[in-house]
Amino acid sequence: MVQDLEEKHISAAVIKRLPRYYRYLSDLHEENVERISSDELSRRMNVTASQIRQDLNNFGGFGQQGYGYNVAYLRTEIGKILGLNKTHNIVIIGGGNLGKALAGYSNFASRGFLIKGIFDSNPELIGKKIRDIKIMSMGVLENFLKENDIAIVTLAIPRDEAVNVAKKLYEYGVRAIWNFAHVDLDLPPDAYVENVHLSESLMQLSYRLNMRNGKEQK
Amino acid sequence: MVQDLEEKHISAAVIKRLPRYYRYLSDLHEENVERISSDELSRRMNVTASQIRQDLNNFGGFGQQGYGYNVAYLRTEIGKILGLNKTHNIVIIGGGNLGKALAGYSNFASRGFLIKGIFDSNPELIGKKIRDIKIMSMGVLENFLKENDIAIVTLAIPRDEAVNVAKKLYEYGVRAIWNFAHVDLDLPPDAYVENVHLSESLMQLSYRLNMRNGKEQK
Repeated sequence: MVQDLEEKHISAAVIKRLPRYYRYLSDLHEENVERISSDELSRRMNVTASQIRQDLNNFGGFGQQGYGYNVAYLRTEIGKILGLNKTHNIVIIGGGNLGKALAGYSNFASRGFLIKGIFDSNPELIGKKIRDIKIMSMGVLENFLKENDIAIVTLAIPRDEAVNVAKKLYEYGVRAIWNFAHVDLDLPPDAYVENVHLSESLMQLSYRLNMRNGKEQK
Repeated sequence: MVQDLEEKHISAAVIKRLPRYYRYLSDLHEENVERISSDELSRRMNVTASQIRQDLNNFGGFGQQGYGYNVAYLRTEIGKILGLNKTHNIVIIGGGNLGKALAGYSNFASRGFLIKGIFDSNPELIGKKIRDIKIMSMGVLENFLKENDIAIVTLAIPRDEAVNVAKKLYEYGVRAIWNFAHVDLDLPPDAYVENVHLSESLMQLSYRLNMRNGKEQK
């Protein structure tokens, strides 16, 4: 992955910012805005116009001097870069509260992320449905992945299980993992792991509250 | 917030890395490891030893030459910096699937994040319970916040609602918001917003799958 980015001279930081551009451009598109200058986009997004120009130049520069960006075109092009012009089939491992919540999100489908199945090792859950999505046994996972062209596997299970399941997933050919387990997955470099560590995100807030209280007490 | 960090010369990037140090140190502590060198911690965490030394030096440097870091001490100190030596009372706005999943997470409580209440505008949900936590009406939110010393409010509601609710929360004195709504909240600079944008996280994976497929087709 690092190699990919270097070849194209696009930093991981820019890639992380692209979904936010996509979101703002989608909003503008819905508001029927056809063109936007980097200055105006800068005001809306609360980042500098020069960062916007630099970021978007990575992709060939969609803007024209004195004309601004064509919203529909730029949105489509960033969507293509992010792979949003295709659908991606997903399964969720873990049919607990978090797995259920993720399966219930209609937002994902509207972006082309289709949840095709949920898997759990708990026999009591197997056969149940969350929305229209069946909970299946871990024993049929490998076949399901192949037969349903699954691109992304979501891990919504405890950390010890996640480590073992991730290794199996790699053996089964899965290369993209969306990991909610509170652990780093040690997989070969051609596997992409995107972590969502909710507790660590909360800690950013408690850090800031803590700093603020420290100041007030001075 | 930026001011706080600048005063202490600690970059936001370092703060973002602290929870991961805390996690590794907690694991080491559970394994009864008493001391660890930056080299060994570097191998475990898969970052350079020099980054570890630099990061931890921001906090006065807990290590001693030729001795390594005292795991229990370093863990406690980082915990204090992150405010984990205190409890933080939380409420969740939104009793849908995501709100339920967050309310059901026992991990948060073990870190001192206590979920005290859930609020929803849907009358059908009000009075129901998720675990032991009551779903209440938005009308009693302001009082509840004050009476229960709520430090952090979680937004698990659609984006249009989130924008309005966030403004109200600021008026009510809330300064830390954990935002799952797919929108940027425009609040005064003394409010801390931590965003968890799940769709944008998924897009990082689809970007990488897309780049890989592009390469294979060459």
